[in-house]
Amino acid sequence: MAYETSAPVLSAPSGDTLARFAAIVGEKYAITAAQAAEQEPYLIEWRRLYRGKTPLILRPGSTQEVSRILALASETGTAIVPQGGNTGLTGAQIPFGHELVVSLSRMNRIRSRDARGNSMVVEAGMTLAAVQKAAEEIDRLFPLSIGSEGSCQIGGNLATNAGGLQVLAYGNARAQVLGLEVVLADGRVWDGLRALRKDNTGYDLRDLFIGSEGTLGIITAAVLRVLPRPQSRATAFVGFAAMEDAARTFDLALEMSAGELTAFELMPRLGLDFVLRHASGTRDPLGQPFPWYALVEVASQREDGASATAEAMLTRAVEAGLIADAAIAGSLQQARDFWHIREMMSEVQLHEGGSIKSDVSVPVAHLPEFLRRAEGAVLAILPDCRPLPFGHYGDGNIHFNVSQPVGMDKAAFLARWDDITAAINAIVMEFGGSISAEHGIGRMKRALLPQVKSPVEMEMMRAIKTAFDPRGILNPGKLL
Amino acid sequence: MAYETSAPVLSAPSGDTLARFAAIVGEKYAITAAQAAEQEPYLIEWRRLYRGKTPLILRPGSTQEVSRILALASETGTAIVPQGGNTGLTGAQIPFGHELVVSLSRMNRIRSRDARGNSMVVEAGMTLAAVQKAAEEIDRLFPLSIGSEGSCQIGGNLATNAGGLQVLAYGNARAQVLGLEVVLADGRVWDGLRALRKDNTGYDLRDLFIGSEGTLGIITAAVLRVLPRPQSRATAFVGFAAMEDAARTFDLALEMSAGELTAFELMPRLGLDFVLRHASGTRDPLGQPFPWYALVEVASQREDGASATAEAMLTRAVEAGLIADAAIAGSLQQARDFWHIREMMSEVQLHEGGSIKSDVSVPVAHLPEFLRRAEGAVLAILPDCRPLPFGHYGDGNIHFNVSQPVGMDKAAFLARWDDITAAINAIVMEFGGSISAEHGIGRMKRALLPQVKSPVEMEMMRAIKTAFDPRGILNPGKLL
Repeated sequence: MAYETSAPVLSAPSGDTLARFAAIVGEKYAITAAQAAEQEPYLIEWRRLYRGKTPLILRPGSTQEVSRILALASETGTAIVPQGGNTGLTGAQIPFGHELVVSLSRMNRIRSRDARGNSMVVEAGMTLAAVQKAAEEIDRLFPLSIGSEGSCQIGGNLATNAGGLQVLAYGNARAQVLGLEVVLADGRVWDGLRALRKDNTGYDLRDLFIGSEGTLGIITAAVLRVLPRPQSRATAFVGFAAMEDAARTFDLALEMSAGELTAFELMPRLGLDFVLRHASGTRDPLGQPFPWYALVEVASQREDGASATAEAMLTRAVEAGLIADAAIAGSLQQARDFWHIREMMSEVQLHEGGSIKSDVSVPVAHLPEFLRRAEGAVLAILPDCRPLPFGHYGDGNIHFNVSQPVGMDKAAFLARWDDITAAINAIVMEFGGSISAEHGIGRMKRALLPQVKSPVEMEMMRAIKTAFDPRGILNPGKLL
Repeated sequence: MAYETSAPVLSAPSGDTLARFAAIVGEKYAITAAQAAEQEPYLIEWRRLYRGKTPLILRPGSTQEVSRILALASETGTAIVPQGGNTGLTGAQIPFGHELVVSLSRMNRIRSRDARGNSMVVEAGMTLAAVQKAAEEIDRLFPLSIGSEGSCQIGGNLATNAGGLQVLAYGNARAQVLGLEVVLADGRVWDGLRALRKDNTGYDLRDLFIGSEGTLGIITAAVLRVLPRPQSRATAFVGFAAMEDAARTFDLALEMSAGELTAFELMPRLGLDFVLRHASGTRDPLGQPFPWYALVEVASQREDGASATAEAMLTRAVEAGLIADAAIAGSLQQARDFWHIREMMSEVQLHEGGSIKSDVSVPVAHLPEFLRRAEGAVLAILPDCRPLPFGHYGDGNIHFNVSQPVGMDKAAFLARWDDITAAINAIVMEFGGSISAEHGIGRMKRALLPQVKSPVEMEMMRAIKTAFDPRGILNPGKLL
């Protein structure tokens, strides 16, 4: 299966070396292999695709401690796996065996907040939910929003350039960052905590660390951009008779509300069926079934702006014959109900047996054709499998999941993981798409990377890796 | 003066080598030193701060030719200066003497346009105005807009991460790019022409080239993001009795129209005086003088949206006692007149003797205090000098220009360039600001860079330079 990748060749650190590492953070914050139960939350990926092993987990409390850890790692050639909330979906945060885990969770302070300047300085270990709350407390919006926000950490979000539910209007994690503090492989600290909107003084180092999955340095703090909070929000659940209608409605929505359109999330009927079947208390927002749905959301800085825009947009789409049926949330609770359906789309698949996952993107205008072809391709491999493509239509980013045929043996189905994802990825590549739109490469897709990148691009990435981490101690066996 | 920096030590290419370079593009497109008049437009910076020299200007017609040029440059150790429209303000595009100039101007084709997908693929040599027009032809907006747009080229805009007049709503050049095609120092071609909104597969190479000022590779083409065109626009010329009122009006404008606020451009009374004095046909939009002005613009996807937002915003600012007087443009012509005042702000200074320029940014909320302190600092150096700070208030980016005292000898005034910019830059650094918000480093600010960057940051930049251009042939003596 694609998620079994070869471990890098590393030697085990000596007991003496481990003791030196533990002394940096103090015994209380160094979790040894003997403390198996305490280590477990750091070593098991939540879907249980990966189970890691480590001689030592370090929980530094300051940038200074992280710096001393990496200086020692560099001196002793000890491999390090940086870890945030352990919610990543490609195994980047799980050690193979001989690496030390450096958890940023204790570094969870707000360093400063500037409402007027629309920025905040936070440490890497704050959960995303805590960052959102810190922004709300100064009447601001931090727009990054993903399913795991209660436990994922902002440092991990930045290290993986997380995407999520509001990328359409606000961009992904990268777009939320003004500056970074990073500890380099040899322990040097880069203080790039600038709160500037514009700064053309040299190479863009910030964006190099964002999305590098802990292979170039450890992000310890960030200056985040925050925004004035929207004064109104309108949420609609829309049914479509055909994919092309959804596509044209998206075009219309973008034209009528670019910048205010915060979500256009696609769901197939099968996904709604699964939710209605397995998620208690859910109901179909519309009176009859449709093959496709979209959750459409508009936010506005004017108090009556969002509903006016949403209504105008839906009216035009109805007039153009694009919308079969639609419900606009009449209350906050109803909006939450609509979102609940979308948010349960991943979890409910667990109840239907094996599910083969993917996280792909293509240029937005090609999505309908891509979806048609990818569905055909997986059905050609396994005629009774159940494609469940859903996700961030507006970003061209679809989680093209496939549930197992009813009654098939789960393990036999999951054994087809590589076949099925290869078929999807081949079509993705034909459309000039990405095999990992938001989840990253980690260990899961590392072997695939040279297949989808040109030799020139691989060489450039390796040259950067060598320049930043010549001893290869930062998250070896991940990404590259 | 800050714009005199030492040339790198380079040897002159042999006649034989020059002949090999010329053969790549053909005689017609190789301009030798003997053709002085034809070389001149490529060698003189428009403000005449820099006059360059080169044995050969090459005008390749394809990516393939650029690739062959750099392969040969790499083989022979010949230095190369990439050049777009020769409008840069820090001399990055001007050769010191032994480098060959590679002008991208012949590579000016639209490769493809996708209105539905909101993207276009263009070659580096298209002027910015031609790119804007290409977008308009498919009913889309390419929002990058700068004074030199009639002659600057998109490749240069990306290589320098240009800013300009609409960064507040749309971001700088970096934010307009989905993918790049780049020729590397040794002639390898990176095809990164992806039209994806989301792609988390490896390091962000794209953003490394953007803003690298031709020192890491030559951008030959780009996938640009375009947007649905706004359906309405409202432009106001606002007078303020005090800087703090302007600042609070900006806060209000951002809260009431974030995402739709496309400009908040600051001008001092002195600047308006200069315009009224030297730019024919201009008139003061307001009935009486004020110390500060802002040109405020709002765009909306709704036909009546912009004026409604602008009126609501100005009404609230008036009620709060922040605005002394304001005029909303009643016609397109009037809006153009307002913009004409702003756009002439730089040129009119030529008529008032010497002008010392800067292009700085600080966190937006600190602008009023920064302006107060910088004005005090330059007046302390030269009590009769005339500070003329203007520009992109909303981005925290001010062109803090200083016109000479009336009657002072121009050369004597310009001899104070370093003193005056050093005083401004020192205050910029206190506020955690940037000494080059949008113009880049080039040769003008190269010597300053190590003063404003930490050793760690300089080391990282040099490591990247070495990894991408080990022989140092790409734009030596610029940026680093």
